[in-house]
Amino acid sequence: MSNYHPLTEAEAIEIAKTIKEAFPTGEELVCREIGDGNLNLVFHITQPATGRSLIVKQALPYAKVVGESWPLSLDRARIEGEALILQGKLAPGLVPKVYKNDNELALTVMEDLSDHVIMRRGLIEGGRYPRFAEHISEFMARTLFFTSDLGFNQQEKKRAVGSFINPDLCKITEDLIFDDPYYDSPNNSIEPHLRDAAEAIWQDKALHLEVAVLREKFLTQAQALLHGDLHTGSIFVTPESTKVIDPEFAYYGPIGFDVGAVIANLLLNFAGQEHWSQDEAARKDSREYLLGTIRDVWTLFEAKFRALWNEHGIDRISRTQGYQDEYMLRLLRDSIGFAGAKAVRRIYGLSHVIDIDNIPDASVRNRAQRIALSIGTELIKTNRQAESIEHVVAIARRAVNA
Amino acid sequence: MSNYHPLTEAEAIEIAKTIKEAFPTGEELVCREIGDGNLNLVFHITQPATGRSLIVKQALPYAKVVGESWPLSLDRARIEGEALILQGKLAPGLVPKVYKNDNELALTVMEDLSDHVIMRRGLIEGGRYPRFAEHISEFMARTLFFTSDLGFNQQEKKRAVGSFINPDLCKITEDLIFDDPYYDSPNNSIEPHLRDAAEAIWQDKALHLEVAVLREKFLTQAQALLHGDLHTGSIFVTPESTKVIDPEFAYYGPIGFDVGAVIANLLLNFAGQEHWSQDEAARKDSREYLLGTIRDVWTLFEAKFRALWNEHGIDRISRTQGYQDEYMLRLLRDSIGFAGAKAVRRIYGLSHVIDIDNIPDASVRNRAQRIALSIGTELIKTNRQAESIEHVVAIARRAVNA
Repeated sequence: MSNYHPLTEAEAIEIAKTIKEAFPTGEELVCREIGDGNLNLVFHITQPATGRSLIVKQALPYAKVVGESWPLSLDRARIEGEALILQGKLAPGLVPKVYKNDNELALTVMEDLSDHVIMRRGLIEGGRYPRFAEHISEFMARTLFFTSDLGFNQQEKKRAVGSFINPDLCKITEDLIFDDPYYDSPNNSIEPHLRDAAEAIWQDKALHLEVAVLREKFLTQAQALLHGDLHTGSIFVTPESTKVIDPEFAYYGPIGFDVGAVIANLLLNFAGQEHWSQDEAARKDSREYLLGTIRDVWTLFEAKFRALWNEHGIDRISRTQGYQDEYMLRLLRDSIGFAGAKAVRRIYGLSHVIDIDNIPDASVRNRAQRIALSIGTELIKTNRQAESIEHVVAIARRAVNA
Repeated sequence: MSNYHPLTEAEAIEIAKTIKEAFPTGEELVCREIGDGNLNLVFHITQPATGRSLIVKQALPYAKVVGESWPLSLDRARIEGEALILQGKLAPGLVPKVYKNDNELALTVMEDLSDHVIMRRGLIEGGRYPRFAEHISEFMARTLFFTSDLGFNQQEKKRAVGSFINPDLCKITEDLIFDDPYYDSPNNSIEPHLRDAAEAIWQDKALHLEVAVLREKFLTQAQALLHGDLHTGSIFVTPESTKVIDPEFAYYGPIGFDVGAVIANLLLNFAGQEHWSQDEAARKDSREYLLGTIRDVWTLFEAKFRALWNEHGIDRISRTQGYQDEYMLRLLRDSIGFAGAKAVRRIYGLSHVIDIDNIPDASVRNRAQRIALSIGTELIKTNRQAESIEHVVAIARRAVNA
């Protein structure tokens, strides 16, 4: 990493100029750094004369979250770049095009998606994405199936496990999702009005046991190459298009962790409708849309994963009678458990979501937070009894009717 | 690997001379190659004047089993050497002392254990090893606990997973243990009188499902650094001492795979007592000894693993109420399932055991083989219902009384 240094805007332009695929003609380029500066620099480079553009994303050697700063390996840029390229091959059209990776400078040059909107913001603004379930289920089914022992030569898969060992980023997940929310950690960020709810969770032994088992799966179960951070802030959308970005948390882990992330973030928006919907009828409508999307995400994911398995199952044993059903049920349960863990931590852990935090009225926010906590804890505690995605829908409905 | 070549005896002596710790004085050394030539060269080097000795073990770039030969990575010598050194630190006195590793020559220079006997042969000759359960449970508890996320920093453990990626040797296990025995594979070696029993297993769908689930654990569950081939041919014993050798199959996998290997090989000898005991009373006595040893191995392993966990559990979450009990029960069930798979494959798979194959009388051998198959299939099919090690004892007793 001897050549590594954070780029200036001028340097970012020099790199962009070399990408003939994006800028075949020589007109002037303009650069603006649009990252939040917490983990990465993000340079948005445009060519005003042609309307062409691209993104240069460079990893910083530290993470800043809510004022705290800790060192973070630049190797995550290599992992992100390699994961993006692999995902682009496995799920064409569902990730940004990668023009160039530079591991020494810890950067990736990629397609500009500013014609899309970040899904979290889109949902808050009342957006509907009729193709989303179709696209995200396709992304997950294909990237997860073809990197797993079901769809990938088992010996090559072992080498892939080795090249996606990602200790620094996994550590963030292990602390923020599976540890801090379950005791009075200084990393938590708890609104005073929520303190009693957090304290109840800190006392809930049955909940802690399920979290320990889920964490063990995150630590040990190398099922497939995960995106690793598949929330609605990592997904760009338009009504017609879906693009998954930012796989810097990629590593070999339990498939349910990715599926659960999508479900959890739809549920967080579901809770946030307490504010974002204008009236009771609109709220009901938005929530039905979100529950329908959750149902579709799982149902389509399951159908696609099974279809890939039936067509591309790599060996005799993958076709063992009853095995696929057994596997898919475990996967559903894992997805539900991880969805719960991802919902809880967003309410009073270190890192929140604007679906909830941007609700201006404290009492409305409090209601939304408690709906999310109720859904999250229930999903965690009951994940091993779930038999279908209706389990999630029923828990979500109960939480708003309570 | 440019310098790699199979050593001559003279070259092995030159290497041995440099080990001052083993040969502090300069008297003449004598060398004899004692390996079976299938996977490794094993040079036994002695100093007749002093009675001192050591072993030089060198990996060959291929494997030969029953006439077949396939290429095999020399990297396994690095893995074996590193695993031996780590096991020696974690479980002092229970593995041979390592004097030197040379990854380029794919060799390890280590303590000579020829005052010990290979346990498989010892058991066949009627040996009793009163310290064995104590020692092997200590070896397993310490090496497995301290390489797992329970007793080892989780980020360092991820790097260890990466450095013990072992595709070639895992492939042997995946084929020979989890695949070939369950269909009419050309790799199987089936005595004609056993054909009907093998065919029954090939039809047993409920059995195949459990095998698929066990294989998935072998493929995905990076719980701890396993020995990976912990049968009684990898264990040197005397009545006072136990030394575990040959960890070339080491990789991060499910803990029950090691525990199950020990149990399976005691059960194979249990089945073989059909011949090795001289009469009914001696047979009963030997079998009670073996069942008592199985019970002790599990009970001591469980107690030691729990004690390490209570004393050295690395974090708050490892102390979650109820988690240890839940984990140990899963571990028992995994051990039982893997024990079954390891018993079955030794009866008509590619590689057998002399506890069974050296029975001269075909009808006695047939009885022993069917006892082993009955135990093995029963363990596989019922592993997920087991509640204690008595489950194994009961199945073994039923198989000889049937």
